[in-house]
This record gives sequence, structure tokens and C-alpha cells, in this order.
Amino acid sequence: MTQLEKAINGKITREMKLVAKKESISRETVRKKIAKGELVIPANKNHLKKGLKAIGIGSMLSTKINTNLGTSHLMNDEKCEIEKLKIAVKYGTDTAMDLSTGPGIDSMRKKIIRKSSIPIGTVPIYQVLAEKGFQGISKDEIFDTIEKQCKDGVDFITVHAGITKKNAALAKGRLTGIVSRGGSMTAKWMKKHNKENPLFEFFDELCEIAKKYDVTLSLGDALRPGSLKDATDYAQITELKTLGMLALKAQSNGVQVIIEGPGHIPLNEIKKNMELEKKYCHNAPFYVLGPIVTDVAPGYDHITGAIGASVAAMHGAAFLCYVTPSEHLGLPSVEDVKEGVIAFKIAAHAADIAKGIKSARKWDDEMSRNRKKLNWKKMIELAMDSQKAKDYRKRLNKSISSGTCSMCGKFCPMKE
Amino acid sequence: MTQLEKAINGKITREMKLVAKKESISRETVRKKIAKGELVIPANKNHLKKGLKAIGIGSMLSTKINTNLGTSHLMNDEKCEIEKLKIAVKYGTDTAMDLSTGPGIDSMRKKIIRKSSIPIGTVPIYQVLAEKGFQGISKDEIFDTIEKQCKDGVDFITVHAGITKKNAALAKGRLTGIVSRGGSMTAKWMKKHNKENPLFEFFDELCEIAKKYDVTLSLGDALRPGSLKDATDYAQITELKTLGMLALKAQSNGVQVIIEGPGHIPLNEIKKNMELEKKYCHNAPFYVLGPIVTDVAPGYDHITGAIGASVAAMHGAAFLCYVTPSEHLGLPSVEDVKEGVIAFKIAAHAADIAKGIKSARKWDDEMSRNRKKLNWKKMIELAMDSQKAKDYRKRLNKSISSGTCSMCGKFCPMKE
Repeated sequence: MTQLEKAINGKITREMKLVAKKESISRETVRKKIAKGELVIPANKNHLKKGLKAIGIGSMLSTKINTNLGTSHLMNDEKCEIEKLKIAVKYGTDTAMDLSTGPGIDSMRKKIIRKSSIPIGTVPIYQVLAEKGFQGISKDEIFDTIEKQCKDGVDFITVHAGITKKNAALAKGRLTGIVSRGGSMTAKWMKKHNKENPLFEFFDELCEIAKKYDVTLSLGDALRPGSLKDATDYAQITELKTLGMLALKAQSNGVQVIIEGPGHIPLNEIKKNMELEKKYCHNAPFYVLGPIVTDVAPGYDHITGAIGASVAAMHGAAFLCYVTPSEHLGLPSVEDVKEGVIAFKIAAHAADIAKGIKSARKWDDEMSRNRKKLNWKKMIELAMDSQKAKDYRKRLNKSISSGTCSMCGKFCPMKE
Repeated sequence: MTQLEKAINGKITREMKLVAKKESISRETVRKKIAKGELVIPANKNHLKKGLKAIGIGSMLSTKINTNLGTSHLMNDEKCEIEKLKIAVKYGTDTAMDLSTGPGIDSMRKKIIRKSSIPIGTVPIYQVLAEKGFQGISKDEIFDTIEKQCKDGVDFITVHAGITKKNAALAKGRLTGIVSRGGSMTAKWMKKHNKENPLFEFFDELCEIAKKYDVTLSLGDALRPGSLKDATDYAQITELKTLGMLALKAQSNGVQVIIEGPGHIPLNEIKKNMELEKKYCHNAPFYVLGPIVTDVAPGYDHITGAIGASVAAMHGAAFLCYVTPSEHLGLPSVEDVKEGVIAFKIAAHAADIAKGIKSARKWDDEMSRNRKKLNWKKMIELAMDSQKAKDYRKRLNKSISSGTCSMCGKFCPMKE
């Protein structure tokens, strides 16, 4: 049985206990929320056997962040991707997704799962299409790849099941069309084969596979806006409704589910987007990509994304997919991954304070107490990135022997 | 007569015309808003003579950002500060404040005013106390320095007039006490001399000086919170009410006025803070420092600040004082200034889109149109930081000949 089925049957699993302890809420609350589909524990049975540490994702819990990794055929360096995984874990990512499309996808995925005690996600359709091209693919080949990845121990998979023939047509007339890679591939497949999206048509079959390994389905928003102009448009919201319907279907099949969301949204539309997801998707955990709040700052999209993400999480997003400074420019470097992870840890933490998550504010109060005491050793220890704080302190305060800093020096207001 | 007096008398000045044109609103609207105290044009008569280009600050206009510069006795390099001014202007700062406390304050200030066509602000009390220490200072020495700086052409000055003896006492029991440099100095002065704050007691005299040169008073929030713990507390709000009373007094003296605000505020309290300022300060333009939304990320406070600033500006802050990555660690380097300016330009622009400022979104739509076309030349041109976008593009896409990038390569969804 899956975590969801057990929860419905009143059973509290080892993973639920872990989540309850970590989040300082009661086990019964965890169980109930899972049973209602408002909280998920993405934990593949085969990854649990290999040492996965279960986490919970839901808006009543602390906000989680995800780091995207993976090769492309233009940057295909396994070692570099493992470095990215390590640095992301070091700076506190809660999950990672392997989005590899370069040669050696199976090997990359297996390595990442083996090296991770955090939940790992994938987008199985990337492998299908990277290895075979999208032209001649059959429904069976898609499902075989999904099963293969699930068997390997992937904890959650993005499936673009909501982009039906009807929904795909709604992207016409958009400024940036379909910007989801999986969505765009699926739309092309449907057009070529003149068939319905197999992930939609055979959704029950997909649920059977997910159920077997207890893989959480992350329902992809193939029609997410790729620009502020396309945000909250009819295509996006229509697909969201489809995802809500599929969420109920998955849950009734005993499969845990989260909903993916945008992308690019103006700051004043974020709250509304969170409310619409709750309404149409029955409070299933919302997994947003950013969202970025302006299109004009490539090179700084970890910042444009952190702004949107913190506001989204404050208003109910449970899970934030990071954005790095290299977004819209290329595949991120290891340093970009670090910058992205930290920006999104900041967003998640700021939102947790705003949501009143127990114990989130303790960290800030401890920092401020030490700031008042001018206790630099402690401040550096408590900093989200201790190394950076230390380097700054060293570089900017060469001539300082007192406990102050070069900003105010002897006029430091913290000094009594 | 000052801009405010002229506006009240129905006169539309050259500066009002400039602001109206730049902001695409009617001259009469500009005049009316100035007369009401909801919009200011910080333009010292002596700086106007030297080539100042007037700008307007008010929540109905595009959001403005300020860059803090200036030496301290621990980092005293005039050339470096001029470099900071240049880079801040290059990346679009609307104003700059010279906060020098190192030796040579007069020379630094004069140089900055001479080299700037943007409005320049100062905190005159810094000079008084840096040059003479705060122990033996008389009220006259304070006012003489204020007049000297105004005569030099400073367009707006921070005066901590709201920290009365009574208000200062309210900071007792706070986690981080008084964190404003000027506020902390004033509190110490009052204690030592056992006198009321002279900027409060002789506020009318202060207004006379400001009026003579048409200097805008920026009423400093000496009791701004220095930690999330102290945010929106009784001390802060009590001082805010005092500032509101002083704002009316300044305006009735023909002096333009803006109100300074925090600082450190949890994300969920930002909207409320903006509403309180409007209520207690009669819609005078609100000038906030950040605010940062968590205390735990020194080295990244341009990000924690940009999150708070964008939300503050969406809810009515008119003017954002930037925060750099070096905040809480030391005086910023030139590179830190650049990072701070760009983070706050992002915040201001995201808020302008959210506020529906005319033409703000055009830039984003133009970028997205070119993104869809994979027109890299245009994308780089349109980027907020073209050089950084160009460098990223080059570094991450060495092997790319097609128009795509190393993120998706041949699976680029933008390609038809």
C-alpha cells in the first residue's frame, strides 16, 4: 500500500512519524492531511530501501525547495552534475530533480538516486524523447520508460497529463506559446499522431505504475506562462482545472499527487494564483517554478524568482522549484546552483516566518541577539552561508580590531 | 518659494512639467499631488543651478530607488566612492545619499553634488558628530552644519526629528535597541545633556533652513526595528505618529517632506506597515530601507531586501533605499553597490508592473517577444544588465551554433 492508502486506512507509517517529528506537528495531523491529499511524502519504496530520508510537502509544513540538475547534450558532464547535487544538499535543498537529456541518462539517474538521501524527481518523457526523438514514439515506449525510472527509485515524476488536444489549442495567440519542454514535446506528438495525450488518455494505467512503487505524481503545467503577458490566462487556468480533475483521479487510485504551477507571474497576481490552485485542485500541494516577477533581468532570475517564490509560499505554495542566475541563458554552473539554492532557501524561510511555522523565527532572533552583542563568531556560524559572511567580514574590515564593522566603525549603534 | 508653495498657489514649475512628462501623467495631477504633500520633487535651488534633473517621488509614480555612498573613518577613499556613484547611476539609481563619516566630509559632498544630475541626500548629523564627537555639541553647531550642507546644494536631508526623549525611552526592552546611527547618536545626546532633541524642539527653525533652499526633509525613523523581533512594535509606531505630526508642520511651513521607514519586517507585516504610514503620515511619500524579510542571510541582504522592497512598493512605498550584499558585514565595495542597485531596480520594476504604472510592462513584453524569436542580440540589449547576460551567454554556450541555449538545446520549446 502507498502512504496515501495507509493514511486513508488509519495507519501511521514510519515516514509519517518522521515528518511529524521534523515539523513539530502531531502524527495524526500528518496522517489526516495525507488522507485528504493536502500533504504528500514522496518516498519510492525502492529509494526507502536505499536510505531515503522521508520529508513531507504541504502548505501547513515548512516550505520545501527543489534543485534542478542534469546534463543536456550540449553540456554532458556527470561529475559536474554530482557536484551540483552535493552543493545543493550542503545549502539545504529538500529535493532534487534529474532533468538529464544528454547521453547516459540511465547511468546519471542511478548515480543521483544512489548518492541521495533526499527525494529525487524526474521528467521521464525527457528520456524518451532525448533517446528516441519524438517522431515515432508509441504510448508503450513512454510507459516503459516511466516504469523503468520508477523501478530505479525515483520519488516523484513530472507528467504533463493535463495538456489535452483541446487544452493545447488554447496556447495559440500567446506571446510565448508553450514554454514547458515536456508540454511542447507532447503538443507536437499529439499533432503528428493526431491522437490524444497518452498520459491523459491512459492516466489510470499511469497511476498503476506510480502506485506500485509509491511514486508521487507531479502534474506538470505544460501550459504555464512563459512571460508576464501570458500569466493567469485562459489556457493556464483551463489546464489547472484539468489537473485538479486528474488529482482526484490519482488520489482515488491511491496515488499521491502534487500540482505544478508557474513560472512567470506579475507580483499582484501571485496571491490569486495560489487561491485558484487551492480551489481547482482541492488543496493538493502546489509546486511552483519561481515564479519570476519580471522578464527583463536574465542573469538575476534567482532574485526575480525569490521575490515571487516568497510571496507564493506565504500565500500557500508548499514547494518551490529554484531558479538560478543562468535561467534563460543556459544550463547552470555549480556556482549558479549554489546561488539559486540560497536565494530560494531565503524565500522559503521568509515565507515560513510569515506563515508562523513553529520555530522558524528562532533562528532570526538568535542571529539578532548576537548582532546586538557584536558577537561576530556566532553571527558567522548562524549565517545561511557562513563562508560568504566570513569572507566579506575579512575583506571589508581589514583595519578593524574592535568588534564593529567598516559600515559605522566607532559610530556603531549596536555599541552601548 | 518652494515647489510645495508654488503648487499650493496653483503654479506649475519647470520641474513639475519635467516630472509630468517623464511619468506620463498630467501637469495638473503633479501639481495637485505636490500641494497635498503626496508627491515631492527634491530639488535644491543651488543644485538646480548646477544641472540637477528633477524627479518626482510619490506612490502614484514609478518607484524610485536610492543608493547609499560615503566614506567611513575605516574606509576613506574618495575615488572609490565616486566610482560607486558612477556605477549606481549607470544601473539606474534615481538618487544617492552621501553618508560620509571619514575625514574630508565637505570635499566629498561637494564632489558628489558637482558630479550628479540626480538628487543627492545627506544625514547632516553624521558630519557634526564625526567631526566634533557628540559630547559637547550645541544645538547651534547642529543647525550650522545643516545650513552649510543645504547651501552646498543637497536635495534632501535625513533629520531624526521624531526621536523625542519620550519616544527614545520606548526602545528599552527591544532585542536590538536603536539601530539607526543618527537615532542612537541623538538618544545619547539627549541623555547626556538632559535636553529634548533639538531637531524636534526647534523644528520650525529647521523648516526655515529647508525652505530657503527648497530642501526636502526626510523624516528619519530613528526607532526603526533592527530585527524581525522588534518590527511593528510600540516604539516604531509611536515614532511614526510623531513623524506624521511633524510632516504636517513641515508642509504648513512650505517644506516638502518624506517619511523614512524600516528596516527589518516579516513578509506578512509589510502591507500593514504601508497602510499605517499612509494613515498616520497623511500619504506623505514613504521611503523604506529594504525592508529585509529575514535576519539570517548576511552576504545576501540585497536579496532579502529586494523581496521586502518589492512587496512594500506594491503596497504603497514610493522610494526604496537599496541594501547591498555587504549589509551587516561592512561598507560595500563597488561591486556590492552594483549588485544592490540591480536587486532594487528589479524590486522597483516588479512593483511598478504590479501597480499598473503606465509603460512598465512594455519592457517585459518586448523581452518576451524576442525570447520567443530566440533573438539573442535583442535579448541581451534589453537585459537590465546587458554585460552580465552577454557573459553568461558566452560562458555557458560555447558549443552552440544554433539559436538555442545549453539548457534545452535541440529540445528548446521556443523553436517552432
